[in-house]
Amino acid sequence: MHLSRYFLPVLRDTPKEAEIVSHQLMLRAGMVKQSAAGIYSWLPLGLKVLKKIEAIVREEQNRAGAVEILMPTIQSADLWRESGRYEAYGKEMLRIVDRHERDMLFGPTAEEVVTAIFRDSVRSYKDLPKNLYNIQWKFRDEIRPRFGVMRGREFLMKDAYSFDMTIDDARATYQRMFAAYLRTFARMGLKSVPMKADTGPIGGDLSHEFIILAETGESEVFLHKDLLDEEVPPADTDFFGDLSGIMDAWTSKYAATDEIHDAASFEADVPEDKRVTARGIEVGHIFYFGTKYSAAMGAKVQGADGEWVTPEMGSYGVGVSRLAGAIIEASHDDNGIIWPVPVAPFEVGLINLRAGDAGTDGACSGLYEKLQASGIDVLYDDRDERAGAKFSTMDLIGVPYQLIVGPRSVKNGEVEIKIRATGERETLTVEAGLNRVIEGVQGQRILA
Amino acid sequence: MHLSRYFLPVLRDTPKEAEIVSHQLMLRAGMVKQSAAGIYSWLPLGLKVLKKIEAIVREEQNRAGAVEILMPTIQSADLWRESGRYEAYGKEMLRIVDRHERDMLFGPTAEEVVTAIFRDSVRSYKDLPKNLYNIQWKFRDEIRPRFGVMRGREFLMKDAYSFDMTIDDARATYQRMFAAYLRTFARMGLKSVPMKADTGPIGGDLSHEFIILAETGESEVFLHKDLLDEEVPPADTDFFGDLSGIMDAWTSKYAATDEIHDAASFEADVPEDKRVTARGIEVGHIFYFGTKYSAAMGAKVQGADGEWVTPEMGSYGVGVSRLAGAIIEASHDDNGIIWPVPVAPFEVGLINLRAGDAGTDGACSGLYEKLQASGIDVLYDDRDERAGAKFSTMDLIGVPYQLIVGPRSVKNGEVEIKIRATGERETLTVEAGLNRVIEGVQGQRILA
Repeated sequence: MHLSRYFLPVLRDTPKEAEIVSHQLMLRAGMVKQSAAGIYSWLPLGLKVLKKIEAIVREEQNRAGAVEILMPTIQSADLWRESGRYEAYGKEMLRIVDRHERDMLFGPTAEEVVTAIFRDSVRSYKDLPKNLYNIQWKFRDEIRPRFGVMRGREFLMKDAYSFDMTIDDARATYQRMFAAYLRTFARMGLKSVPMKADTGPIGGDLSHEFIILAETGESEVFLHKDLLDEEVPPADTDFFGDLSGIMDAWTSKYAATDEIHDAASFEADVPEDKRVTARGIEVGHIFYFGTKYSAAMGAKVQGADGEWVTPEMGSYGVGVSRLAGAIIEASHDDNGIIWPVPVAPFEVGLINLRAGDAGTDGACSGLYEKLQASGIDVLYDDRDERAGAKFSTMDLIGVPYQLIVGPRSVKNGEVEIKIRATGERETLTVEAGLNRVIEGVQGQRILA
Repeated sequence: MHLSRYFLPVLRDTPKEAEIVSHQLMLRAGMVKQSAAGIYSWLPLGLKVLKKIEAIVREEQNRAGAVEILMPTIQSADLWRESGRYEAYGKEMLRIVDRHERDMLFGPTAEEVVTAIFRDSVRSYKDLPKNLYNIQWKFRDEIRPRFGVMRGREFLMKDAYSFDMTIDDARATYQRMFAAYLRTFARMGLKSVPMKADTGPIGGDLSHEFIILAETGESEVFLHKDLLDEEVPPADTDFFGDLSGIMDAWTSKYAATDEIHDAASFEADVPEDKRVTARGIEVGHIFYFGTKYSAAMGAKVQGADGEWVTPEMGSYGVGVSRLAGAIIEASHDDNGIIWPVPVAPFEVGLINLRAGDAGTDGACSGLYEKLQASGIDVLYDDRDERAGAKFSTMDLIGVPYQLIVGPRSVKNGEVEIKIRATGERETLTVEAGLNRVIEGVQGQRILA
């Protein structure tokens, strides 16, 4: 992408309304723009990040056997009356009356809609297990929306819903999602730790929050140090085999958010030199809640023996838009965002220090074409701008690798490379520089 | 994808509520499920089609220099008060009051939101032209939603909004979108014809509807026969060059919907043997409306001479979810849907006539892996089901190429190929059959 043709409205100053660093940087980097309280437009740079996060979430859901659907944003209140949640939900539900005076709502979650789909479509045990997910905008009318996309009102969520014949099958599905979540967050360059959680109004008796560690995280968390080195399931994991070992390894050591932290247990269970206190951000939450919705809404499946069974359910959420902010909280410095390659809006930034000069223009065009041909996502700063502004923009928006081309380097057949994360700069021949960058990007794209 | 692990709730009978063939077939093929009047969930098969349509729209928007953003579904009424449309819009606007008693609405379109983004972010003529698009769910509270996704209340739309310094520049942008639309619909296997249109409540003085021809189309259209053979701009068209020739070629001959059809002009302008009367479906609509929104909302840009200019605007819509239905209207038979390859949910269907038999299972697994390795999107019917049910499911859901494997063909080292569109069947060696199918798919994927 040529920056001259792009839409990247960066801000020089930090907007006063932004209290936390991810919110400040997302506004400054021109990623999002507030449209109403807690409601954002995603500008091109932000949308690219959002799509990359979404793609990773999708790949790992598919790998774990979940099947993608797409449920509507507007739901009928009648479905929520069937589950009993319509009256119970409170003011965070955005309630709507349509032109025919029917009660509708903007879905804050979709247990009712998906259970209705299942109830009307599935009859036989042969069709189970089923795990249906969607990545769709949700709305929760927070009384005080803040922190940008971290606690917005309209937000993008991946929500999966599973249906199993037995409690044991449901636990196996839960373990599959548990393992998928570990991979999902690791692929974004995040250190995530699952922590036992209350099930809250969703009901059920088994639940984990996935917390990623970030110095500026919203809450305090307490964990066993060894969890920081626990292995994430590799790509060739058999997701349809027994995953209880993975879950045991990750849940046998102490890990708790401040909400349910118990200092006495922490001290009793964890040796002093292994006790870690850190800041964290919730980015995922998984629940097993049995037949709460299937029973209330009359979903039944006929077993092999002819008996009708009420399926066991779970639900599994990832805060997709929230992750854009969470990754920034976990990875930034004074100059701006430091994107991990797999979620970077652009993998390489190409800076032309003298746009309009035939030599640098030619050299940059050549590099741009070669990077594109290698499948690298490049942002080419071809604007007529000061060098300083170009450097600070690339750093602010956090492009992982930068190639800098000026009249002198062109004359010497060289190119300067800068690594955003470390600030390292190095001058190499054009070919060596190009290869270094391409290999660097490719090596960091995928978690094996 | 193994059908045994998929979620494909096909219906044997045609649901009574479905009046038109695309609605009937989308329900029967398990593509969508109604959740409330005019509001649908997209099941896996339907979602795959929707994503492929969306990807083609996106590619052609990008090719024409438009830049993708994502605006929220919920908008503030205050923005619409600035343009004067809040009171004017009528009952199709879904109006909402949030917990703080602020007037909100579910966006039926986004001129106001995008003009506000532009107004706050763009100051200089150097940043123009700008054409920002998004693919987002919209809501129009139709008094009588019907025809499935063809006239739903919640629907997916691509809407682009352009900003130019001068009327001439705005016309050039309009021509770029005009040419992009011709490519967009042609790539989906559709015959589209642009027809001059009223601008309606959106305002402005230049507008075209893009109508695709379908025997079961919603309205009658009248056109010059030569438009059916008019050339669609090739992929290597220079979208930043002069496109007025393309627009002239497509607009110099008579073409009108029944709404603005003038029989006298039709007879005067078109020789009798060139007069075509057909059925059509509107799938796109483009508008140039000048400064209607930019002036009302105070968007201004400083020109090279230091003068502040109110930018010229246009908007460009494609009915993304509607297209799923429109393509079916244009391409089906008594057995079901006939997907053009570029939008087919699966490109190849692999039918195992005796699932559980070691020979056919092994042969199918081998074919499945080879098709996957060639980048083909395959649906493998590995279920324990009657052959007749498998054949009719593949035909109903419209998979373009089918490979049929039974004990006899395995014994002979052969495979049967079926072409969905023609019903042609042929028995070939496994290798020849595989190549035929792979080449067939690859040859039909892209419009050059």
